[in-house]
Amino acid sequence: MKLYDSPHAPNPRRVRMFLAEKGVSLPTVSVDLGKLEQKSADFAAVNPLRRTPALELDSGEILTESVAICRYFEELYPEPPLFGHDALERARVEMWQRRVELQFFAPITHAFRHSHPAMREMEQPQIAQWAEVNKPRAVDFARFLDAELALRPFIAGDAFTIADITALAAADFAKPARIVFPDELTNFARWRAEVSSRPSAAA
Amino acid sequence: MKLYDSPHAPNPRRVRMFLAEKGVSLPTVSVDLGKLEQKSADFAAVNPLRRTPALELDSGEILTESVAICRYFEELYPEPPLFGHDALERARVEMWQRRVELQFFAPITHAFRHSHPAMREMEQPQIAQWAEVNKPRAVDFARFLDAELALRPFIAGDAFTIADITALAAADFAKPARIVFPDELTNFARWRAEVSSRPSAAA
Repeated sequence: MKLYDSPHAPNPRRVRMFLAEKGVSLPTVSVDLGKLEQKSADFAAVNPLRRTPALELDSGEILTESVAICRYFEELYPEPPLFGHDALERARVEMWQRRVELQFFAPITHAFRHSHPAMREMEQPQIAQWAEVNKPRAVDFARFLDAELALRPFIAGDAFTIADITALAAADFAKPARIVFPDELTNFARWRAEVSSRPSAAA
Repeated sequence: MKLYDSPHAPNPRRVRMFLAEKGVSLPTVSVDLGKLEQKSADFAAVNPLRRTPALELDSGEILTESVAICRYFEELYPEPPLFGHDALERARVEMWQRRVELQFFAPITHAFRHSHPAMREMEQPQIAQWAEVNKPRAVDFARFLDAELALRPFIAGDAFTIADITALAAADFAKPARIVFPDELTNFARWRAEVSSRPSAAA
């Protein structure tokens, strides 16, 4: 297998963190989004939707979508479980993963794509108002998470899961999106410091 | 268990279709989005994020997010498998489900929310340009699906899966979003007619 990976972008980072938590390492091919390498004909043959990451299996089949790749590795390497360990826990993890994706990760990436000068070619047209509308939505969700994180150590419960990976990738991507989380979100800050100190956060 | 459900909206429809495919019926509580019932204090106690659907378990615990609810029922009622039946197939289904959600369902809901008069209160501010940008994106993805559906009967392979449910809910929601799919997408039209004729499509 090999992984088509890109530095800096939050989705490939989710897969790298996931693999690091599983203790799995893979050969990688770097696709430089800054040089629009994902738009090349070569990469279109890998993923016609022209996004990273992508996983090439030994059969030659390509799997795309970060969470699909993570889910595949969860089945190959079940320990430690990062999607939950029974039916109800897996449902809770999926709920939190999706809440984080739809109401935190998405607003942050919209704010970034529609405001950052580096995205001028990739996101056409950039709509400044859409970027601005999304910034307070991300902060509102961080406030909601802050209240939840007063009740438990990790986003979906007592164990670190993919929901924490998605939330950390999003929270760190808030910086280039020019979104600032208020200092009073102390539970959110405690959670963020803890997950940031895991070796996988540097993957 | 009971399901907090809303007519017309595409996410609750995904859960109803999924349950119908599984042959499961549940008591439901109707939450009228047209009357903004999801914004009421009563419903905020069910889902603080004020969205439907939501599943109340016998323990009183609430599960939200359509796909988390579907995944829970997949574990309770494994047949027929709607998320795939082995590790690789489950990864493929997840890949297609996410491609459809992110590049078809999302543009269609953005176009609807940012253009439809019925959303004036719920989506503030409505950004007409953002609605317009999303319409051709949904059509582009339908064109991509059309080419894929020349190769196989269903979106993720030879079997009907949750990816088909998500894509049908999105395709039908294109109508109030004022998105029209070109007639030349004959494979897409064949697939759509087939999945629309399943009894679950009327659930």
